[in-house]
Amino acid sequence: MLFILKEATSQMQLEHVRETIKLMGLEHHFVQDGKRMKLWVQNSNSEQNLQIEDLDQVDYSEEINVAYPLASRQVKNENSIVKIGDIEIGGDKACVIAGPCAVESREQLNEVAKELSQFGVPIFRGGAYKPRSSPYAFQGLKEEGLEYLAEVKAKYGLKIVTEVINAESLKHVEKVADILQIGSRNMQNFDLLKEVGKSKRPILLKRGMSATIQDFLMSAEYLLAQGNNQVILCERGIRTFETATRNTLDLNAVPLLKQLTHLPVIVDPSHGTGIRELVAPMAFAGLASGAHGITVEVHCKPEEALSDGMQSLTPKQFEKMYSKFNKLEAALK
Amino acid sequence: MLFILKEATSQMQLEHVRETIKLMGLEHHFVQDGKRMKLWVQNSNSEQNLQIEDLDQVDYSEEINVAYPLASRQVKNENSIVKIGDIEIGGDKACVIAGPCAVESREQLNEVAKELSQFGVPIFRGGAYKPRSSPYAFQGLKEEGLEYLAEVKAKYGLKIVTEVINAESLKHVEKVADILQIGSRNMQNFDLLKEVGKSKRPILLKRGMSATIQDFLMSAEYLLAQGNNQVILCERGIRTFETATRNTLDLNAVPLLKQLTHLPVIVDPSHGTGIRELVAPMAFAGLASGAHGITVEVHCKPEEALSDGMQSLTPKQFEKMYSKFNKLEAALK
Amino acid sequence: MLFILKEATSQMQLEHVRETIKLMGLEHHFVQDGKRMKLWVQNSNSEQNLQIEDLDQVDYSEEINVAYPLASRQVKNENSIVKIGDIEIGGDKACVIAGPCAVESREQLNEVAKELSQFGVPIFRGGAYKPRSSPYAFQGLKEEGLEYLAEVKAKYGLKIVTEVINAESLKHVEKVADILQIGSRNMQNFDLLKEVGKSKRPILLKRGMSATIQDFLMSAEYLLAQGNNQVILCERGIRTFETATRNTLDLNAVPLLKQLTHLPVIVDPSHGTGIRELVAPMAFAGLASGAHGITVEVHCKPEEALSDGMQSLTPKQFEKMYSKFNKLEAALK
Amino acid sequence: MLFILKEATSQMQLEHVRETIKLMGLEHHFVQDGKRMKLWVQNSNSEQNLQIEDLDQVDYSEEINVAYPLASRQVKNENSIVKIGDIEIGGDKACVIAGPCAVESREQLNEVAKELSQFGVPIFRGGAYKPRSSPYAFQGLKEEGLEYLAEVKAKYGLKIVTEVINAESLKHVEKVADILQIGSRNMQNFDLLKEVGKSKRPILLKRGMSATIQDFLMSAEYLLAQGNNQVILCERGIRTFETATRNTLDLNAVPLLKQLTHLPVIVDPSHGTGIRELVAPMAFAGLASGAHGITVEVHCKPEEALSDGMQSLTPKQFEKMYSKFNKLEAALK
Repeated sequence: MLFILKEATSQMQLEHVRETIKLMGLEHHFVQDGKRMKLWVQNSNSEQNLQIEDLDQVDYSEEINVAYPLASRQVKNENSIVKIGDIEIGGDKACVIAGPCAVESREQLNEVAKELSQFGVPIFRGGAYKPRSSPYAFQGLKEEGLEYLAEVKAKYGLKIVTEVINAESLKHVEKVADILQIGSRNMQNFDLLKEVGKSKRPILLKRGMSATIQDFLMSAEYLLAQGNNQVILCERGIRTFETATRNTLDLNAVPLLKQLTHLPVIVDPSHGTGIRELVAPMAFAGLASGAHGITVEVHCKPEEALSDGMQSLTPKQFEKMYSKFNKLEAALK
Repeated sequence: MLFILKEATSQMQLEHVRETIKLMGLEHHFVQDGKRMKLWVQNSNSEQNLQIEDLDQVDYSEEINVAYPLASRQVKNENSIVKIGDIEIGGDKACVIAGPCAVESREQLNEVAKELSQFGVPIFRGGAYKPRSSPYAFQGLKEEGLEYLAEVKAKYGLKIVTEVINAESLKHVEKVADILQIGSRNMQNFDLLKEVGKSKRPILLKRGMSATIQDFLMSAEYLLAQGNNQVILCERGIRTFETATRNTLDLNAVPLLKQLTHLPVIVDPSHGTGIRELVAPMAFAGLASGAHGITVEVHCKPEEALSDGMQSLTPKQFEKMYSKFNKLEAALK
Repeated sequence: MLFILKEATSQMQLEHVRETIKLMGLEHHFVQDGKRMKLWVQNSNSEQNLQIEDLDQVDYSEEINVAYPLASRQVKNENSIVKIGDIEIGGDKACVIAGPCAVESREQLNEVAKELSQFGVPIFRGGAYKPRSSPYAFQGLKEEGLEYLAEVKAKYGLKIVTEVINAESLKHVEKVADILQIGSRNMQNFDLLKEVGKSKRPILLKRGMSATIQDFLMSAEYLLAQGNNQVILCERGIRTFETATRNTLDLNAVPLLKQLTHLPVIVDPSHGTGIRELVAPMAFAGLASGAHGITVEVHCKPEEALSDGMQSLTPKQFEKMYSKFNKLEAALK
Repeated sequence: MLFILKEATSQMQLEHVRETIKLMGLEHHFVQDGKRMKLWVQNSNSEQNLQIEDLDQVDYSEEINVAYPLASRQVKNENSIVKIGDIEIGGDKACVIAGPCAVESREQLNEVAKELSQFGVPIFRGGAYKPRSSPYAFQGLKEEGLEYLAEVKAKYGLKIVTEVINAESLKHVEKVADILQIGSRNMQNFDLLKEVGKSKRPILLKRGMSATIQDFLMSAEYLLAQGNNQVILCERGIRTFETATRNTLDLNAVPLLKQLTHLPVIVDPSHGTGIRELVAPMAFAGLASGAHGITVEVHCKPEEALSDGMQSLTPKQFEKMYSKFNKLEAALK
């Protein structure tokens, strides 16, 4: 049950409500929605609901009608904005994340980070831990890769997003990353979601290849239920019968998610298409569909990339795309 | 085998080549690609190829490497532009088609046509013959519906696109329609494709719900092989596991089709989403992905529509969308 | 609304009911379900319903809760058995249909028909009209192919099933075929369904590649609504993300269809897999899932087949499969 | 590169080969395939290959042409049989695993285990750690659940299969389980695969909802590459556009996997359909398609089950199914 508190509720009164609920032994979450504080209580019975409604500070109550309350517009109508320093994701300005699929070497990373920072890219991506379909494929440089990420972060003033694959990697990644990425194949690794949800860092959650919108939001709910509300959703293509593209970028998901959730939504046209020439048009399409940003793979020598070379832009191609992207953003306002 | 003729080939020389091929008894197509005339010959043997290459007017030859030669960039690299009076589809200006799903009555049709013509919409859509999943659903007004379409065409100066479902309907539709539509469920009704391909009218071919890009282009090839090269492709959503939207609008298809074919590509965000609120963002996304236009369902009273009410815009909603669409188009240039 | 008549209703009383409904101007169908006659009336209002319920011969009424009344168990609970001479489809004995994908020549057809008839196969398949993805692929021998089918029918005492693709082909096919096949790509060619539904011949309706079970039953409903109730459903694989097999044979559909409909259900393991070595195991699986029969492609020289060679069994392979199939059938009783 | 050793290679000679490869610093696996020992060496260069081929014990060499060498028939043509005490999976006798979706309480578990053991079921399933789409759904009794599993194992002489969700749970599960299950949603949780692959216990790997056959085998390869070759594959339904069933049980996968891999393949008709009435027919179909066994959900009070009630059989329903299953198995020999 959802209880909407009165606008004028003071901090002290709020504490009083909190104490009451605790005494009732109920799982609950307080959520600030614009000027209102809302209280969502799990599995309360009708007697308990009456008791809570009777509290002075409670204005009215509503039944929850979704499977992902904390992620829903019902509990929080106001858009959530994830802040990384002075960068906002989910606000007015579209956010651009760029970088190579994987950290391959100090040289490779520095080279591409330098170029991207010169273009004004605010957030840099690159995987140190790489989940790969084959056990014999390059699995990432791991801690060594994180070192190189820390290096370019310091050198070029870039924010860093990189993937977490288990509790162990989380410890290391947290020291370097500004945003923790959960990859598609782990979107329903609920154990990992619980671990990462406990972190204080913002989280970029990629949609699973066969995840419905509802599945996706329930996985976000795992993170929110752990108390981390800095969650960014990323549409990156679903698996369909079409094999001409690596995945089918489902841009319908963008306006639909924006209807259903207050969380920011970004788009990954690199994985969403798997084809270099399609990245720019689909980045523009993502923006036009209402996305709060994009994440794009860039590599100085895509033909030598250890993974995802086919879908990586060169810095030059990225620059051209970025410039048009910014113009388009201005026009969409 | 594809034979590229010399630039300077005169009309008389061309006739000479044509006669030679005819005498060899080979199926063939001549295609103008920019300044060059190209000759595609089916199932020729190596001896015949040598003989053709030896012709004075032949510059060089290439093996065909696609399953849809006439639709491919290999045979025709230059963009095809479909002209309906002074309207162009596939050229610089994005084309907007709007109207109700079905022709329901004279009043309904006039009402919406009047509004749309006032907004400056050039092409009007509306089904007189309606393929419906249930035999008990409204199947269209048929010839009566065509009369009403003819009426609004005359009254408001709109071009008309409407669906053809068999040889019989084709005879009637051709008298009224400027563009013949082949619906998704008939995309692989090859018998219909052959019939419609013989018409002199432009054709709007909608992608089948489970058609790959290759299937789609091979269905277009059926039309081109009949001699009709005024074919417009329409991405309208594919069937995937996602049920939150009616279909999954596959915008990847737009830049990919533009790589593979010279035919114009438009997008149908109404069927592609099935949800009114998603139509505008996906129309914008379609344009940003590079589409040559959109087709959108509009109904004055969507709640009373005999079909597709949930995905129809009101004229007012359409007007707002159209205005933003035009601004976006300007920005994308 | 569905009206269940009293068991003791005489033919004369039935006529009386029929007259009454006719006078009310309502679309309706009478269906014999075991000992009971049932009357389904379309779009009747509550007043009309009361009037019909008041008829002496009416026992009670039920609201229809499916989109495919005539195909449903609600309207007809008793299994429908399609009879072709002394062969039954939908009864106790599983039915086996075998033959080449396409009629290619008199010799090819006679060769394989001779072998199959010697194995005791009751029904022979072979396409004279071939819907093909490419306009340049072999499109069937058409009327000439029908002649050869008529020949083997006479010579080997085989029943014939062959595909219909339009009204024109129907006229020719009806003269030779015992069963009219509607192919997957035409499952939602509603115009064709209406034409074929008017025929007196049994109909084999193949599931569309992206048709849900509900779509499939609604297409069957088109046939039943035209008065043809000798409809056989055929599961032949759906299109999914899996490309290791040509299609994904959806055997879940077999027991599910048997719950929902009284119509016989058979399985096509040839198209369902696209791989010769998988045909036998999937034929057995189809039978074990409860199917009323199978249809299998057989070709004397699969490597030379003009279509579907990869999925065709040789007569020898078929014989081995058929023998095991029969043993399995005995065990399943 | 794959090196096939001579049949007569002695243990000592084998050691010699092993030493040589080790000195070359190459990753490698020795695999016994029938009478032959085979040596697969990763990423060897042509010089190294020549050197290895020159060894006396090496008969001949082959290039590896699959992405999952250790799982493939190329490296091991002989069927692998997983042994749990005197029970074999992958041998002549089909294996039946049954039990509730989740361990819910001591009473629930004992009740159903008692019934199933009386029917002669050899392997009992039940989840103590439950990966659930919603964070608010029952997440399993965890260690307490394992205790109850240990109890019924001792009491009824059942072998136990239960799910592992992370490194922590592995430690506990290993103490009780005879087979470690990796769930669908974790099929590409490569970190988990690596952990579980190090265990000495047999592993039941369930196919991911959107995993191709190739993905599936590459995930099995992760386990084999860690040295665990007691891997059982389980087809449990894939996600398609069809929503009438929970998943689409892909039985094509069974004969296809048996072509490609030596690992045993079983089928889960409970998750594969999601509908109680479909479980028995699809269990039979699974067996007829060639599966080495089935895993079925059984609950004494399905209507009260904390998860998967809709697809659970009652013990009585299971008994009836099991009896017919055994008859069918006899007939298939």
